Amino acid sequence: MKTITLEEAAKLLLENDNYTVLMHKSPDGDAVGSAYGLCTALRNMGKKANPLCGDEIPSCYLYITDKLEYEEFEEKFIISVDLASTALLSGKAKEYEEKVDLCIDHHFSNTGYAREGYVDGGASSCAEIIKKLLDIMKADISKDTANALFTGICTDTGCFKYSSVSPETHRIAAELMEKGADSTAICKLMFDTKSREKLELEKMVLETLEYFEDGKIAMIQITDDIMKRSGADPGDTESIASIPCQISGVKIGVTMKEKENGEYRFSVRTTGNNDACEICKTFGGGGHKAAAGCSIFKERGAAKEDMIAACKAALGDKQ
Amino acid sequence: MKTITLEEAAKLLLENDNYTVLMHKSPDGDAVGSAYGLCTALRNMGKKANPLCGDEIPSCYLYITDKLEYEEFEEKFIISVDLASTALLSGKAKEYEEKVDLCIDHHFSNTGYAREGYVDGGASSCAEIIKKLLDIMKADISKDTANALFTGICTDTGCFKYSSVSPETHRIAAELMEKGADSTAICKLMFDTKSREKLELEKMVLETLEYFEDGKIAMIQITDDIMKRSGADPGDTESIASIPCQISGVKIGVTMKEKENGEYRFSVRTTGNNDACEICKTFGGGGHKAAAGCSIFKERGAAKEDMIAACKAALGDKQ
Repeated sequence: MKTITLEEAAKLLLENDNYTVLMHKSPDGDAVGSAYGLCTALRNMGKKANPLCGDEIPSCYLYITDKLEYEEFEEKFIISVDLASTALLSGKAKEYEEKVDLCIDHHFSNTGYAREGYVDGGASSCAEIIKKLLDIMKADISKDTANALFTGICTDTGCFKYSSVSPETHRIAAELMEKGADSTAICKLMFDTKSREKLELEKMVLETLEYFEDGKIAMIQITDDIMKRSGADPGDTESIASIPCQISGVKIGVTMKEKENGEYRFSVRTTGNNDACEICKTFGGGGHKAAAGCSIFKERGAAKEDMIAACKAALGDKQ
Repeated sequence: MKTITLEEAAKLLLENDNYTVLMHKSPDGDAVGSAYGLCTALRNMGKKANPLCGDEIPSCYLYITDKLEYEEFEEKFIISVDLASTALLSGKAKEYEEKVDLCIDHHFSNTGYAREGYVDGGASSCAEIIKKLLDIMKADISKDTANALFTGICTDTGCFKYSSVSPETHRIAAELMEKGADSTAICKLMFDTKSREKLELEKMVLETLEYFEDGKIAMIQITDDIMKRSGADPGDTESIASIPCQISGVKIGVTMKEKENGEYRFSVRTTGNNDACEICKTFGGGGHKAAAGCSIFKERGAAKEDMIAACKAALGDKQ
């Protein structure tokens, strides 16, 4: 992949037309916000652009997706947004894995699969990059574009909480509000709304909470039985993994999720100097220092024991 | 109270010295952040200033309060911050109720108790006003001041989620980060940390969740028994009241809390056109449209029935 500047990316977008903008599977707020934000702005400039995701886009993003109807045209230029690797393409989007002309992303781990690419691993979100790109292009930011980009930024930063948030992130949020982003409604929908089923899931999962090592390690379990009884969506389990590590005194928080074929999937979150990735590597997994994952294929009790043993070893004196 | 401009308030602060800065009882992040933010900045300018709160300041704000030792001096000028009414003063601070020289506040309901005052009901937080005041005074914003003010802004806006957040709020947050505010650590501490006891409280309270009117009304209960068994702090119940109204489809969320002497305290939260204040007025309470409170002095079952009946009546066709 040829690394280009944001100015060069802007030039490419101004010179070309008939865009398809790819999103990763299980699209989140940043994937949807980046793709729809870019496509609405391109159309606003008189260009043709369609977003494309192999998976169905969750209905919570309907206020973004219903602003753009699919248009028929002969596609000529393929863009990917928020896509670290083509392994994350699914369904119809998979056909494009060898054909991406331009990649715009904020993952340090981007595999460089595109012809040309701009990757800023320090950006809070891909949507933050898209906003800067549109500014360089002197594109008009409509209310629809602003809502899409604001959604990308706020969801990828836990509502401006994570360490990836820079002063510039806040300034961009301010500008998007001035362009009409309905920040209050978006934040309410993204952070202060949960289904009955998700609340039920949280309640049941809290009942499985266990502490180890004087409360320095905490573990919760999401069993098949809990998923069935709560009626929760698979997507509802995502935010659950952050619960154990939010508890005062907990250094390593583990979420154990029952999967098919005897697999137990672990999400590990850590604070301070404790390394989640190191723990997960023991079992062939990986990720970041503060958040990582792995699978153990054993009977429930043994899988749990193995994980807790690895956590205890990792705690060591790095508390 | 003589209403003055922020420029006039700045002039007063530049001309006077030996300040005592009052906080309300049960001080929250905005009270502590505003008072300590102002005092650290005043001291930085060579002036004398002490914050004063009648109640003990919660230990979660230690990273702010430990930056300022009490200084002995003859006080000459009394300032209140984030104080809507002198009825909210407690302990030693109560002695000042008739003596406030300057009030700086963001409550529309400010009772005008001070000699002179600047009240901006549209500001997200009092800390946001203090930041603007310090800019007018051309005061240096140190890391300690920035941490205090950032805390005030983020806690009073639910981490930039509420409708009181303006583009200016985000720009001020950006500037405070540039002055050294450790936004990631502050947000983690304020929003992503809870005690074991608080988590236990949440779990127990979720077990009391009931729905009425096809899920348009939801109620949770905090009983004495739950408080005792969970070991939670009285302060831990504050955020609990937002849970029922976060559930999809719920228009009116009610939290019923057992108090002493046969009192049941209700917190009512609403979405859309439903008016929490109207519901609470039925029982002699009050508040805002989206959040209000009242007490009912009846046996548990009767108190609950009365409240649910009032909620059903209020739902009416305003759904």
